[in-house]
Amino acid sequence: MPAAKMTGDAFAALATRGVPYVGQLGCTVERFEHGRVDVRLPCRDLLLRPGGTICGPAMMALADITLYGVVLSMVGPVELAVTADFNIHFLRKPRPGDLIARGRCLKLGRSLVVGEVSIVPDRRADAPADPAATPPEPRPVAHVIATYALPPSAPTYDAPPSDALRPGHGTDGASGDRAT
Amino acid sequence: MPAAKMTGDAFAALATRGVPYVGQLGCTVERFEHGRVDVRLPCRDLLLRPGGTICGPAMMALADITLYGVVLSMVGPVELAVTADFNIHFLRKPRPGDLIARGRCLKLGRSLVVGEVSIVPDRRADAPADPAATPPEPRPVAHVIATYALPPSAPTYDAPPSDALRPGHGTDGASGDRAT
Amino acid sequence: MPAAKMTGDAFAALATRGVPYVGQLGCTVERFEHGRVDVRLPCRDLLLRPGGTICGPAMMALADITLYGVVLSMVGPVELAVTADFNIHFLRKPRPGDLIARGRCLKLGRSLVVGEVSIVPDRRADAPADPAATPPEPRPVAHVIATYALPPSAPTYDAPPSDALRPGHGTDGASGDRAT
Amino acid sequence: MPAAKMTGDAFAALATRGVPYVGQLGCTVERFEHGRVDVRLPCRDLLLRPGGTICGPAMMALADITLYGVVLSMVGPVELAVTADFNIHFLRKPRPGDLIARGRCLKLGRSLVVGEVSIVPDRRADAPADPAATPPEPRPVAHVIATYALPPSAPTYDAPPSDALRPGHGTDGASGDRAT
Repeated sequence: MPAAKMTGDAFAALATRGVPYVGQLGCTVERFEHGRVDVRLPCRDLLLRPGGTICGPAMMALADITLYGVVLSMVGPVELAVTADFNIHFLRKPRPGDLIARGRCLKLGRSLVVGEVSIVPDRRADAPADPAATPPEPRPVAHVIATYALPPSAPTYDAPPSDALRPGHGTDGASGDRAT
Repeated sequence: MPAAKMTGDAFAALATRGVPYVGQLGCTVERFEHGRVDVRLPCRDLLLRPGGTICGPAMMALADITLYGVVLSMVGPVELAVTADFNIHFLRKPRPGDLIARGRCLKLGRSLVVGEVSIVPDRRADAPADPAATPPEPRPVAHVIATYALPPSAPTYDAPPSDALRPGHGTDGASGDRAT
Repeated sequence: MPAAKMTGDAFAALATRGVPYVGQLGCTVERFEHGRVDVRLPCRDLLLRPGGTICGPAMMALADITLYGVVLSMVGPVELAVTADFNIHFLRKPRPGDLIARGRCLKLGRSLVVGEVSIVPDRRADAPADPAATPPEPRPVAHVIATYALPPSAPTYDAPPSDALRPGHGTDGASGDRAT
Repeated sequence: MPAAKMTGDAFAALATRGVPYVGQLGCTVERFEHGRVDVRLPCRDLLLRPGGTICGPAMMALADITLYGVVLSMVGPVELAVTADFNIHFLRKPRPGDLIARGRCLKLGRSLVVGEVSIVPDRRADAPADPAATPPEPRPVAHVIATYALPPSAPTYDAPPSDALRPGHGTDGASGDRAT
């Protein structure tokens, strides 16, 4: 498997740069390989819903960030990669505690990337009495499949502004259009 | 069409009670009728992404709240109504400004409710020179279809805790399970 | 609204050419305008499920054909337009009888087209006693939202084979790739 | 893992009984375990699209059948289990040849079952020169996630008609309603 096209730290910075609503989630990148990215969502009061568990919209944001990481791990720091469609199934009520999103790529095309995310409770939350034993992978609390659209000539973060790359284009193709 | 089963104000309070990550969106309910709910997401720095537009996760949260309102407008204050599946397509880059989510019910069943949301820019954002003229409905920036699961014996907010309503049930059926 | 880029008859021929599993549905195009296409699925024994109603897979095929028509009505006879994602919610058990799929475009981009389909029973099935009265639009039995991917340089049906248009491209970009 | 609640043969008979459009696919059940079902779709002229590969609607039908099998493997022959939502992403153009759908359960609830299907080409299609070597799992051509709704008191096939089980219920709850 090829190496990731950027570092997890660089991804973490890019993903939250200038997006405070996402940045305040306090996510940490636990794995960042080519096409495989794990992101931790720490349990905090800001994200709780009645019952003491993390609210649905926070899980959606977690999955969106994770899949953005999956895309960037394969194509590099393409800021214009945007979510086209996003489908989530909520499976179980998460117990109070951190959540881990495990993202992987299902298909890397020239213009579309399809990825899958399984959100599971942090297994450390239910560590067995015997500390030597490895707890089993918890059952997922949510499953996501989504598509990201890549710009025609995937510019890297240091590239000139996309407007310069797309002369004479209309509204639908405006830079940053989420589903061009 | 029957009347809404609760008021928009009561819904707004219920939707954000104890969910700070959602409450901080500062959404306002602009329409609350039986099966039809419009919610405004005010543009604020917290929600912006590079380019000055509202970030995707904020739009997902907006749609989730709106559909929760559509459900409660028909069944009343059922706190245990939970999102089962949620599918969003991002259509266009929203211009800077408020967003309006227009939600409606596609199907009200005994245990499942399917609803649709169209997110559009606030038309006031591009008011015509002639203040007397009504601006056209803007093109949607995102479209959502989702399913909510209702508890078997839809308890109202003042009902006893659901655990008491579901004796001897396993994990999958625990109260608050998002997709029982 | 601009005119459709091809005729409904030409679309019907293209949609079923060499696809017997789809052709045998016997669909008829009832409306073919730029971005708006209605297709009728006649009720026949082949498509029935126990209960005398049309089976789910036939409804999925109907919606897929209808959205393919929505795309071609706007871009012309682009054989390489392919379904990328397809999401259907089954809402009600259809009564025995023909089904009508009403498709429309939600977004036409350079490389992606997002469309919506509402499948309803043929209103003629429940014509009122008074033949002069127009029966109301029936409630939808299914709702679909899907994305079609267009080839980079959308070739028309008379264009040279796509392989010639895409020299030196790998598997993911092979002609007909459903989600490049 | 508990045993399957019925046999693969019994499932195959139930799935195609009285549904000729599905029965003509000629699917064969290759694996039928509790929560895990593999179904083969043989390549035949009826299912081909230009390019010699199996058409999209046939893949949708294959996935729907497979997930119905996943549900019945866990709850037994419940004829009234119906598809509520179905989401498919087409990933790659399948090569000519049989397709295998690998289905598994993500969540078994009291009223909803969520399952996942990965459709892959039959690996025998590209057997290595060395017949002793096991060919690698091919890359998926499509991915599906869907929800099935179970009737309130999951009746088995031999149970009395659901109408008798659901006194005084309206249209939405009619037996066979696809998303009650």
